[in-house]
Amino acid sequence: MAGSTFGHLFQVTNFGESHGPAIGCVIDGCPPGLALSEADLQTDLDRRKPGTSRHVTQRRESDRVEILSGVFEGLTTGTPIALLIRNEDARSKDYADILDTFRPGHADYTYWRKYGLRDPRGGGRSSARLTAPMVAAGGVAKKWLREKYGTQIRGCMQQIGSIAIPFDSWEETERNAFFAPNAAIVAELEAAMDRMRKSGDSVGARLRVVASNVPTGLGAPLFDKLDADIAYAMMGINAVKGVEIGAGFGCVDQLGSRHGDELLPDGFAGNNAGGVLGGISSGQDIEVSIAVKPTSSIRIPRRSITRAGSATTVETRGRHDPCVGVRATPIAEAMLALVIMDHALLQRAQNADVHHSVAPIASRSPTG
Amino acid sequence: MAGSTFGHLFQVTNFGESHGPAIGCVIDGCPPGLALSEADLQTDLDRRKPGTSRHVTQRRESDRVEILSGVFEGLTTGTPIALLIRNEDARSKDYADILDTFRPGHADYTYWRKYGLRDPRGGGRSSARLTAPMVAAGGVAKKWLREKYGTQIRGCMQQIGSIAIPFDSWEETERNAFFAPNAAIVAELEAAMDRMRKSGDSVGARLRVVASNVPTGLGAPLFDKLDADIAYAMMGINAVKGVEIGAGFGCVDQLGSRHGDELLPDGFAGNNAGGVLGGISSGQDIEVSIAVKPTSSIRIPRRSITRAGSATTVETRGRHDPCVGVRATPIAEAMLALVIMDHALLQRAQNADVHHSVAPIASRSPTG
Amino acid sequence: MAGSTFGHLFQVTNFGESHGPAIGCVIDGCPPGLALSEADLQTDLDRRKPGTSRHVTQRRESDRVEILSGVFEGLTTGTPIALLIRNEDARSKDYADILDTFRPGHADYTYWRKYGLRDPRGGGRSSARLTAPMVAAGGVAKKWLREKYGTQIRGCMQQIGSIAIPFDSWEETERNAFFAPNAAIVAELEAAMDRMRKSGDSVGARLRVVASNVPTGLGAPLFDKLDADIAYAMMGINAVKGVEIGAGFGCVDQLGSRHGDELLPDGFAGNNAGGVLGGISSGQDIEVSIAVKPTSSIRIPRRSITRAGSATTVETRGRHDPCVGVRATPIAEAMLALVIMDHALLQRAQNADVHHSVAPIASRSPTG
Amino acid sequence: MAGSTFGHLFQVTNFGESHGPAIGCVIDGCPPGLALSEADLQTDLDRRKPGTSRHVTQRRESDRVEILSGVFEGLTTGTPIALLIRNEDARSKDYADILDTFRPGHADYTYWRKYGLRDPRGGGRSSARLTAPMVAAGGVAKKWLREKYGTQIRGCMQQIGSIAIPFDSWEETERNAFFAPNAAIVAELEAAMDRMRKSGDSVGARLRVVASNVPTGLGAPLFDKLDADIAYAMMGINAVKGVEIGAGFGCVDQLGSRHGDELLPDGFAGNNAGGVLGGISSGQDIEVSIAVKPTSSIRIPRRSITRAGSATTVETRGRHDPCVGVRATPIAEAMLALVIMDHALLQRAQNADVHHSVAPIASRSPTG
Repeated sequence: MAGSTFGHLFQVTNFGESHGPAIGCVIDGCPPGLALSEADLQTDLDRRKPGTSRHVTQRRESDRVEILSGVFEGLTTGTPIALLIRNEDARSKDYADILDTFRPGHADYTYWRKYGLRDPRGGGRSSARLTAPMVAAGGVAKKWLREKYGTQIRGCMQQIGSIAIPFDSWEETERNAFFAPNAAIVAELEAAMDRMRKSGDSVGARLRVVASNVPTGLGAPLFDKLDADIAYAMMGINAVKGVEIGAGFGCVDQLGSRHGDELLPDGFAGNNAGGVLGGISSGQDIEVSIAVKPTSSIRIPRRSITRAGSATTVETRGRHDPCVGVRATPIAEAMLALVIMDHALLQRAQNADVHHSVAPIASRSPTG
Repeated sequence: MAGSTFGHLFQVTNFGESHGPAIGCVIDGCPPGLALSEADLQTDLDRRKPGTSRHVTQRRESDRVEILSGVFEGLTTGTPIALLIRNEDARSKDYADILDTFRPGHADYTYWRKYGLRDPRGGGRSSARLTAPMVAAGGVAKKWLREKYGTQIRGCMQQIGSIAIPFDSWEETERNAFFAPNAAIVAELEAAMDRMRKSGDSVGARLRVVASNVPTGLGAPLFDKLDADIAYAMMGINAVKGVEIGAGFGCVDQLGSRHGDELLPDGFAGNNAGGVLGGISSGQDIEVSIAVKPTSSIRIPRRSITRAGSATTVETRGRHDPCVGVRATPIAEAMLALVIMDHALLQRAQNADVHHSVAPIASRSPTG
Repeated sequence: MAGSTFGHLFQVTNFGESHGPAIGCVIDGCPPGLALSEADLQTDLDRRKPGTSRHVTQRRESDRVEILSGVFEGLTTGTPIALLIRNEDARSKDYADILDTFRPGHADYTYWRKYGLRDPRGGGRSSARLTAPMVAAGGVAKKWLREKYGTQIRGCMQQIGSIAIPFDSWEETERNAFFAPNAAIVAELEAAMDRMRKSGDSVGARLRVVASNVPTGLGAPLFDKLDADIAYAMMGINAVKGVEIGAGFGCVDQLGSRHGDELLPDGFAGNNAGGVLGGISSGQDIEVSIAVKPTSSIRIPRRSITRAGSATTVETRGRHDPCVGVRATPIAEAMLALVIMDHALLQRAQNADVHHSVAPIASRSPTG
Repeated sequence: MAGSTFGHLFQVTNFGESHGPAIGCVIDGCPPGLALSEADLQTDLDRRKPGTSRHVTQRRESDRVEILSGVFEGLTTGTPIALLIRNEDARSKDYADILDTFRPGHADYTYWRKYGLRDPRGGGRSSARLTAPMVAAGGVAKKWLREKYGTQIRGCMQQIGSIAIPFDSWEETERNAFFAPNAAIVAELEAAMDRMRKSGDSVGARLRVVASNVPTGLGAPLFDKLDADIAYAMMGINAVKGVEIGAGFGCVDQLGSRHGDELLPDGFAGNNAGGVLGGISSGQDIEVSIAVKPTSSIRIPRRSITRAGSATTVETRGRHDPCVGVRATPIAEAMLALVIMDHALLQRAQNADVHHSVAPIASRSPTG
């Protein structure tokens, strides 16, 4: 209720601050009998962690996750899975001088107004570091969905600043620092990011996340629509300012005759819906795009005010990403996995007795 | 949990189907002592209701709301406020022939896969008619927020199909059938809509909703961010495919030095944030944009399948809106009001003891 | 959150006041495909309704329930089932003189302190009349549980005032006005109740509710224990002051060697546990007892205070039950059904993939 | 939803198993600005911890709590407070031989039926050890309530086995191993417990918990009644089989004229209500009694079955309490504190604007 628990039945409660002793989460509601080890979660944590290339923050965190509960002899027991990640490289002195002012674009001002006090070290609770436990939790969901339904969840970069990134292949996304699905554009991205870092400024990004082999029937008619819950999950990621499902804002000037995906015996003729109709999954790929704003911590001096309300100037000197969107891909994947997992459990709670004599139509849309 | 209850503390439980005996909702958690009558809710219901111009569906519903509980001698009592709207003009025969097939873009197929059966009359539960109780509930929230904080929530059309609508004034939005904030463009919109209706096709729309005089400090750090809950509310409106807060997708190619709104003693220098920083309201206007897909019910024949999986053709003959976005403005306003109301209660639950000696900085951004 | 919604997955949202236009509820999360008509719900409503014997309040309500949504062609659709019961016999003048004072044992004082105002007509929201929609909702749960698992939920009176009622047979409970499972004691109860009514005083009662053929595995380890949720449900019924599971307070002076029910190949050797071990159903009968306080509305003058705080005397003249416990049996049954239904859905959400090669041990405890 | 999160606004998510690496909890929704250190929580943890006298289990745990987040410079920040307690003395070999059978009175059988597998070490998740994090969380609630409202929460033993313990003074409860409010009876209790321990059997207990200086108006009319939530909290404590509020089961043979507490200008004339009327606190002391069953782990051989369903005998050899009720007092206090804290936040969320010109009547009932 205070906003640190995500999900209805597969619930993840997140805790921690950027420069506190530890961050982590508690996953409640995981089905029992899932083979699970720390190694299963480390892969995505490593994809997200800082310090992996010169294009992201140079903070050094191993992001080693420890499973504190909920697993016995290598299998989940159905009881809460607590995950702990110790903070290692917390240089709090970098932030000592910003306690009395507010960085533009940051949550400094709003936290202070809300709570009357704030932990300024590394952004405290508002740090993107708090997405690490969600990536770990998403790893559990991904594994269960893959083993149960063959569901696959993948993300890639679509645009960094003004550079659009044409989709070439999923394989390429894991071969460069940008999760760019296109080898040819990597050099251009690297050069742009180097310039950005040197200028002390930052830039936004646009990402895409796709879930394939999602069962039909997930979601709800009115409020907990699958796409509404996805929008909630995505907009809740640090720095996200926009969310699209399927055609997204492109539907504004589409005609209905073009937008509505026709149904054919071998599948839908298109996927403008992005895999969701009336809030319920259609069996098509779930297609999501998000806009990530430019990193708020930049080295360029900006105007701000002090806590007393007088004018001042603020300039960030800590270690930051020139484009926070770069590390957002595994985060967005994890959040999508959590939503789908949650709805998979909700679906069988209410509708386990629904049986069809006709199989769902195949997904025809090539994912790419 | 099954998705018919909206909100955390100001909770609205919605019920009904398009062609059933009645639709309505139960509002739980409303503060006591609010003066409330059916007339207070009728204004927005009338703005949303069908049959008010030739540009929207010709279904005739008076949408008269009856307060069944929670109000005593003209004041809310703090107990649930049940609202009932009887369905009047339910021509179910229009839909008899679609029970065995699925309309492209509609929820027919997904409901059937989810539940194994469906109420096909007027779209059943998936009908946009179910937004009427939310408009009524939003009216309660609007009234409380206005009286308590002076909060004002307004919406307008930004684009219909390819016709962008430059903002001129809020006053104009209530003088035309499109909620267009610009008198000069109304003739062009009317002509376009007449053509669309005659063609049997439909078109999408882009809307904007703004909340002014929102207290600072509403929202939560991690998941129930104010913008995340707004995204959830907006994406949950029928036919919405995209949500933006502030700069939205425009932030992708912004520089951080431009995006991050500077703080000055007399207010923020801009509002790229859309009134939310780190998931918490800043006191700026809350700025939201949504994309509404073209109406799925069109008179043009489309390919589909039968429940048995064989190919067929479907053509809708019922009464529909050529652009469902036209009636979405009061709906989006209501949903935004519900989110803000909910967070206003959450905020004082946790932080009622927070006191500042310095007033929040003023909102400088002109709403327009 | 404001306390008018019951349950996690099978959620019932209750609304209404004793003398308002109507009372009712919205059931969300009901599995689709259940055959359901108003007649299915009327049986239990009739068992609870006032005016059926001289031993209960003489208010005349037909308690006819109307299904407003969620049922199509006689089957539940999976969408919210709204139930409406119009109030008919609301003699509000009976209560006009108590607006300025507080009846001992009633919620008058606490409602006023909480909300600052209250609806005094018939107790407003605090009236036991608000249990009628729960009885109807419980009827849906009972029907689903019976058809799915053969679950049977029955209640009976154990004690009225100082008269203990030995259990004879379940059949007898439906043959007298007290739900007494024993024909021999009915005359004594009638005489006692007649005396009580004439004296203007009231008396408490002790009830027992039993669920048989409950699947094993329902419940949760820590907080949403099946017995904890039952205690919550029972203590939430008007006038209930105590709840026991199995041996209840009798376990205080039991030895562990006697209390712990041994497991034998053909079933448990006893049922001190009341069908719940570690918060999870064992397959034994769920055994619950509750204490219902004497009706607070009595004709004997009592000391009280006015809203201004000065001393006064209050005497109730409206129509009331001399023992509210008499009508509580169908209510307690309904609440138990709702809890079990909810946990049945929760169980398959998380544990649908759990399979055992060995059947659960049979319930050996004779229900009686 | 899977039952490891307690509370609505002041939410505590519990994790861990008896013999896993650690146990703990995450508290979300705590108001900011509360001075809090580990020492504040240690007092109650030490009152609950094992190994403190010969009358409780000899497991040696220091139960040192570590605050991982949510506190900055000695004050709560409003963000989640994660508490970690490492398990130290986990002799898992004690339990190796019980994996294939089920201890009578324990959750072994039901966990296995529910999840298909279980962690048998020390009872795994079903161990009373999991109450330690709740005691710590309750310490936060107690501190806030005391500082904000002067609320005081105390518990004491009322009966162990057949030995009733007359109330003498609250001070005495902290001077003996049984939380007995009476020095004169301690020797008798010690002798009885020594006999019990030697016999290898166990015995039940009855406890009382009282909250004084509770604000009026806490609770809700229908389901989240203050007493219903208390019943839920208490019945959720390991081994609890009965809960009473105020007169409890004693109300069954009370007359209404005696039960209903009269209101006088200087306070209520009695407290049969136990501080709750219509589900809402009256300002009287909240009076709760609970029944705790005898420890299920006893050294006396009992009949049971194997996982394959054949007959066997089970005898517990691990370290256990002869009366688990002995250590339950701080647990029950903590759970009561959590419920009241939660409702205090809920109350100001909805009703912060309610103002009375007349002070609530004083609580006259002497607590004792």
